[in-house]
Amino acid sequence: MNQRLDALSAWLKEQDIEVAFINSKENVFYLTNFHTDPHERLMGLFVFKDAEPLLVVPGMEVDQAKAAGWSHEVLGYSDHENPWELVKAPIQKRNLGEVGKVAVEMEVLSFGRAMSLIDVFPDAGAVSVEEKLNEMRVVKDEKEIEIMKRAAEMADYGVQVGVEALKDGITEMEVLAKIEYELKKKGIREMSFSTMVLFGEKSGAPHGNPGERQLKEGDFVLFDMGVVLEGYTSDITRTFAYKSVSDKQKEIYNTVLKAQLASLEISKPGTRIGDLDQVARDIITDAGYGDLFPHRIGHGMGINVHEFPSMSHLNDDVLKEGMIYTLEPGIYDPEIGGVRIEDDVLITEDGHITLTKTPKELQIVGK
Amino acid sequence: MNQRLDALSAWLKEQDIEVAFINSKENVFYLTNFHTDPHERLMGLFVFKDAEPLLVVPGMEVDQAKAAGWSHEVLGYSDHENPWELVKAPIQKRNLGEVGKVAVEMEVLSFGRAMSLIDVFPDAGAVSVEEKLNEMRVVKDEKEIEIMKRAAEMADYGVQVGVEALKDGITEMEVLAKIEYELKKKGIREMSFSTMVLFGEKSGAPHGNPGERQLKEGDFVLFDMGVVLEGYTSDITRTFAYKSVSDKQKEIYNTVLKAQLASLEISKPGTRIGDLDQVARDIITDAGYGDLFPHRIGHGMGINVHEFPSMSHLNDDVLKEGMIYTLEPGIYDPEIGGVRIEDDVLITEDGHITLTKTPKELQIVGK
Repeated sequence: MNQRLDALSAWLKEQDIEVAFINSKENVFYLTNFHTDPHERLMGLFVFKDAEPLLVVPGMEVDQAKAAGWSHEVLGYSDHENPWELVKAPIQKRNLGEVGKVAVEMEVLSFGRAMSLIDVFPDAGAVSVEEKLNEMRVVKDEKEIEIMKRAAEMADYGVQVGVEALKDGITEMEVLAKIEYELKKKGIREMSFSTMVLFGEKSGAPHGNPGERQLKEGDFVLFDMGVVLEGYTSDITRTFAYKSVSDKQKEIYNTVLKAQLASLEISKPGTRIGDLDQVARDIITDAGYGDLFPHRIGHGMGINVHEFPSMSHLNDDVLKEGMIYTLEPGIYDPEIGGVRIEDDVLITEDGHITLTKTPKELQIVGK
Repeated sequence: MNQRLDALSAWLKEQDIEVAFINSKENVFYLTNFHTDPHERLMGLFVFKDAEPLLVVPGMEVDQAKAAGWSHEVLGYSDHENPWELVKAPIQKRNLGEVGKVAVEMEVLSFGRAMSLIDVFPDAGAVSVEEKLNEMRVVKDEKEIEIMKRAAEMADYGVQVGVEALKDGITEMEVLAKIEYELKKKGIREMSFSTMVLFGEKSGAPHGNPGERQLKEGDFVLFDMGVVLEGYTSDITRTFAYKSVSDKQKEIYNTVLKAQLASLEISKPGTRIGDLDQVARDIITDAGYGDLFPHRIGHGMGINVHEFPSMSHLNDDVLKEGMIYTLEPGIYDPEIGGVRIEDDVLITEDGHITLTKTPKELQIVGK
């Protein structure tokens, strides 16, 4: 078994839990190296305290699971078969004895599938496996860090493509199309979320939608994007001024930058996570923009573009070497527009590095 | 209230269910016209038997929900607030009396959120709201059909762009990038799934991944793609021969085409849905390729690219006017490659039309 499966099995032993059932594509990937989206079809991994793990996938994905390195039992099923019936035999074969507890993903496992699982293990109660998996996933190993560095490089490249595309009258969607085109030509199949290119007052909505807004002098240009590379994500935001910038825009920009740098400054092992948000929020509030910063400072990232830890000011956990998260304070004025500056940050032995490298000083572009 | 909310409320009355809680982004969109992805944050719609509905969204999305036309109560919350605590007051205000049943999305609602819901309605049991919503969503109204026609036109356009990009030595990813670039320039923000462009033997895997495979004479070229337009999806597959075609390839192609046309032929109100798969499967099996057609003939589509009905040969339901689904038989030979031909089909009063219009006769392209 691989180290991650070993660790999960060891935890099951320690907790005296007979079975874990995992069916989010992210955790299945984390534990098996098999990366796929089964859509509404069932894909599930059974991990046992004392028996060989069992992977269940749609029949047409069996070969791909093996090619990804899965060397234990794999059960394929056709669309007209009920996988929940088919798993009963291989599970029976494992002679588990009485199953009193099944560890499941409480936030993912649906009611419907929980019922099917109860049918397989009628005497078991459900406990959560998510804390354990989150704890494992929150600290990235060398291979994950290496992939995420490359994913962040691609995000930097996307911003560069976007800046180079800017010209009077071009629309947000035209710039967005150009960015994704160039990334796809470099082999990127999937963005980690819907790319955002927002001009002028449109950037003033934290979750705005790119559209037909045309670029003109004096606009803020906000890019927020990331790629999925080998199953891992990146996420960058940069904001530029187009051709000219007002004093008010400068003030907003530099307040956000100061906030971002302040939380970056304290990013090192042992820092309370909530302080990252608090230090940035205090700076923005003191500058009089507190009401215009309506979201937390960032989020953990890895296989999911949003994962643990949550970077809200209430989080009392501390930073550990190997954590990767975003720092992305913002100020959104519905008329002037918004500024957000976001890096992907890796906690190192004695501090941090940013995986995203695009410069952050205010740049007036398009001149 | 809008007609869909009215219908759901009427159903709650009929079933004597006090509350429905809906939190999939698709069903929230269907019922509110508000289209967003809240990621891990809670977005939920409470619909009551006898009281005003309540929409819960992340605070920064409140304005967008209103802009989408939501005119009832909306509750926004910040990242540091617990929305499950906040909903208690507005729900109490509604004087529901004793709540014995809550209708939920059994396949979507997670264990974790079910616990939070139980905390709000401690005496309620859960029943499924999905059959009702699926029944409503499976028949498309005029506006939905009009949008899906335009979404299908965009899918046709994507295939056309792909064909025009073909030349010796071009890679799958280069063609894919070109397709999505041209679609984005036309305002498409999101594909309905990861676009597939597969050459030669790569097309022989039903769920293959586009990569660096270069195009050469004699290859099958398989495109499978769709767009999301105004919240609705399209999905087309076409397979072409590049520059030349062998007799074996012709035989495979024409078998798939015959199967697809046969199931299209019987697509009209009253047909048993399972027969669509069966008639195509029989043709492919009789031609000796039964083992190489490992998936069902298609799937319903609408807001989701995969939704009800499921088009397996076991489905005893019958087709109704307004249903939209795919028909996509395929034959996958790991060495020669694969052929799949897929249309989006709308059931009309007395038959069907295909929303996708790209011709289906075998075409040798790139000459």
